[in-house]
Amino acid sequence: MKVLFRYNWEVRREWFERCKQLSHEELLRDRIGGAGSILYTLYHIADVEYSWIRGIQGKPDVQVPFEKVKTLQLIRELSDTWLEEVAPFVEGWSSELDREMVHISWNEQPYAQGDILRHLIAHEIHHIGQLSIWSRELGLAPVSASLVDRKL
Amino acid sequence: MKVLFRYNWEVRREWFERCKQLSHEELLRDRIGGAGSILYTLYHIADVEYSWIRGIQGKPDVQVPFEKVKTLQLIRELSDTWLEEVAPFVEGWSSELDREMVHISWNEQPYAQGDILRHLIAHEIHHIGQLSIWSRELGLAPVSASLVDRKL
Repeated sequence: MKVLFRYNWEVRREWFERCKQLSHEELLRDRIGGAGSILYTLYHIADVEYSWIRGIQGKPDVQVPFEKVKTLQLIRELSDTWLEEVAPFVEGWSSELDREMVHISWNEQPYAQGDILRHLIAHEIHHIGQLSIWSRELGLAPVSASLVDRKL
Repeated sequence: MKVLFRYNWEVRREWFERCKQLSHEELLRDRIGGAGSILYTLYHIADVEYSWIRGIQGKPDVQVPFEKVKTLQLIRELSDTWLEEVAPFVEGWSSELDREMVHISWNEQPYAQGDILRHLIAHEIHHIGQLSIWSRELGLAPVSASLVDRKL
């Protein structure tokens, strides 16, 4: 599990770098499917991860509206800031907690901690797959999605 | 890890069902990015998984050319047949083998078994994310990518 989070964080950082090659207009342009735009996708990935990880810990949700951070640089800084809290939690997590049920404020039913972490892993990879299509349409080679050749 | 494989297999089955709503021409149409077409993506996901899982076991690669199976029904049958071999291997796999290095015939360097399994998990989710964009462009709602609401 932890390796898959590290994979996601590394790929996310590489996408922030790669996206510097796109104009602000292209980053914000509404697209069909997914989260709607490249920039919103990056924001959404970081936001969803942070919300759930805080939720597991019983901490209140932090709301930073997209409208306030809608540049590549600001969203990258937000993601980095949130990772300072997310990464130590994930790295310190024990698989003994896999079946431990938690109530998250915005959900009626409780979820197992392991399911939440797997949900976050799949959520990010899914959205990154969407970015890879949009970037190719813009003539930009996507970040490699290969895990096996990374040192994680 | 096993839950993420079960997630992928369930999502894959749902995509085979969902794709029945698309014409053979749309399924085969060349698209920008990803594996190139919706049908080839489904074939590629199953093929890559099967090849690596056989590789871990030291079994020779099985080559079924796309040209011989390029209908939704045939690729679904191929995927189901391969899963009959893949699923028991994954379900019987132990995390004690995570760092166990294996030589795969088509790679020069050895890989850890755990890295190969994580690679396969990420590989499928990534390509499914791409399908979700293409299906929306065709007016077809994608299969839900949510893990947390599935019973796995």
